[in-house]
Amino acid sequence: MSRFGAIEAGGTKFVCGVGSGPADLESIQFPTTSPEATLGQAIDFFRGKALEAIGIAAFGPLDLRTGLITTTPKSGWRNTDIAGAVGRALGVPVGFDTDVNGAALGESKWGAAQGEPDFVYLTVGTGIGGGAMVNGQLVHGKLHAEMGHLRIPREPGDSYRGACSWHADCLEGLASGPAIEGRWGRPARELPEGHPAWDLEARYLALGLANIACTLSPRRIVLGGGVMEQSHLFPCIRREVARTLNGYLDPPDILPAMLGSRAGVLGALVLAERSAVVRA
Amino acid sequence: MSRFGAIEAGGTKFVCGVGSGPADLESIQFPTTSPEATLGQAIDFFRGKALEAIGIAAFGPLDLRTGLITTTPKSGWRNTDIAGAVGRALGVPVGFDTDVNGAALGESKWGAAQGEPDFVYLTVGTGIGGGAMVNGQLVHGKLHAEMGHLRIPREPGDSYRGACSWHADCLEGLASGPAIEGRWGRPARELPEGHPAWDLEARYLALGLANIACTLSPRRIVLGGGVMEQSHLFPCIRREVARTLNGYLDPPDILPAMLGSRAGVLGALVLAERSAVVRA
Repeated sequence: MSRFGAIEAGGTKFVCGVGSGPADLESIQFPTTSPEATLGQAIDFFRGKALEAIGIAAFGPLDLRTGLITTTPKSGWRNTDIAGAVGRALGVPVGFDTDVNGAALGESKWGAAQGEPDFVYLTVGTGIGGGAMVNGQLVHGKLHAEMGHLRIPREPGDSYRGACSWHADCLEGLASGPAIEGRWGRPARELPEGHPAWDLEARYLALGLANIACTLSPRRIVLGGGVMEQSHLFPCIRREVARTLNGYLDPPDILPAMLGSRAGVLGALVLAERSAVVRA
Repeated sequence: MSRFGAIEAGGTKFVCGVGSGPADLESIQFPTTSPEATLGQAIDFFRGKALEAIGIAAFGPLDLRTGLITTTPKSGWRNTDIAGAVGRALGVPVGFDTDVNGAALGESKWGAAQGEPDFVYLTVGTGIGGGAMVNGQLVHGKLHAEMGHLRIPREPGDSYRGACSWHADCLEGLASGPAIEGRWGRPARELPEGHPAWDLEARYLALGLANIACTLSPRRIVLGGGVMEQSHLFPCIRREVARTLNGYLDPPDILPAMLGSRAGVLGALVLAERSAVVRA
């Protein structure tokens, strides 16, 4: 069995793992500080372990050709050559993609999208982001998807300005965890199941998902991230997507992610495996 | 040089052609009446011509596996086995896809998307529809894209109800040719260049294109259809897409379609060619 290394490079924490899949993955995590300190800690974890390749699923925006984190607002990380630094230090091939594309790969291989060549993975948490697979291949295009920044109509009566610093009331601005907290004055996890926040949340997410369905026609949409731990949201979202499409399109299946907090690091493991195959 | 047959099956007219590309395409057109009469006329046109295959780019919605036009509101055409009827009558392989996927293929081979593996073709006319290519392959997924039915925010002050019979104020409901005529009381082609209709049109189309860019990250978006013959719209759309993305994403290139009214029939020719290759 080949052993691969995996890095989920998040804005808050790094998760580093070694193994071949969910059954044997050994991982550690530590806070994201400066690039030098954080990447140094990751490299130290992997050093001496005989690895075929390392995968990195990173917060973005990224330049996938050069391996850089580019225009992030995260202090100190702008234009960080993350893939190059790890590859040079450890002398192994590096697979590199966005955190959400990584999670999509993980859900495709071991989770809620197994066997499905046309699906979207969407995470709803501190931010909203999506990764899509079309004809069994990840969508990259010019850069990578930024599905959190879809523009959707506001619901009547919602006067909350929006939490996105670029677009105010895009999908992320209206429906991310910080948007829920900003609108209702309490963190999402403290709002009880019957709170009106959840109907509004389901409505906004449904508008986003309906737009994704009209553009990509996925058979399945897999939802992960902290906000989606509110499992009572799923039936409401399915109902609202059907209401939004209004019989014109048959809605995609909408399912909870199965890999939970391990989606990112397991996705990075798939990136490692693919990178090793590509360079073999 | 192989000769192929091509049918652009539109809701108003059929265009049938024979040839191998734009240089030698011979075509006729006739109004779309009943399926029996219209398909009979098409079959008569092709009979006796030695063809390797026929491609059909059709109005939808379609079931691409069975070759049917399915839930169309067009009288008499619901559940018409268009691909089967043509294939059985002429004894040749049939390539079958949506009109917009056909146009995307045509623009990819001979038009504004040559050499580009990741692009979107969007037509803006009586309706709005889009076809996408990702990693050099058409996007089909569960069914096919329906980009005209994206939900976008209304502009302040626009009280027009919307022209879409399913969703009222989706992109097609706010920005198609009939929406322009419904809102301003005159057909789009009669509105002069400085009319406020065009700023609003550019704004709505830009919101749709920005959503497509966030979901698919295409390098290029090619715009065709009757409304886009207003070439003064292009700089306004580019400006509004950049304003909508607000520096977060680099906008895709936005270009006019090059094949004009022949995009559909030339796309059907590519469908024919691909179908012949697949079955060879």
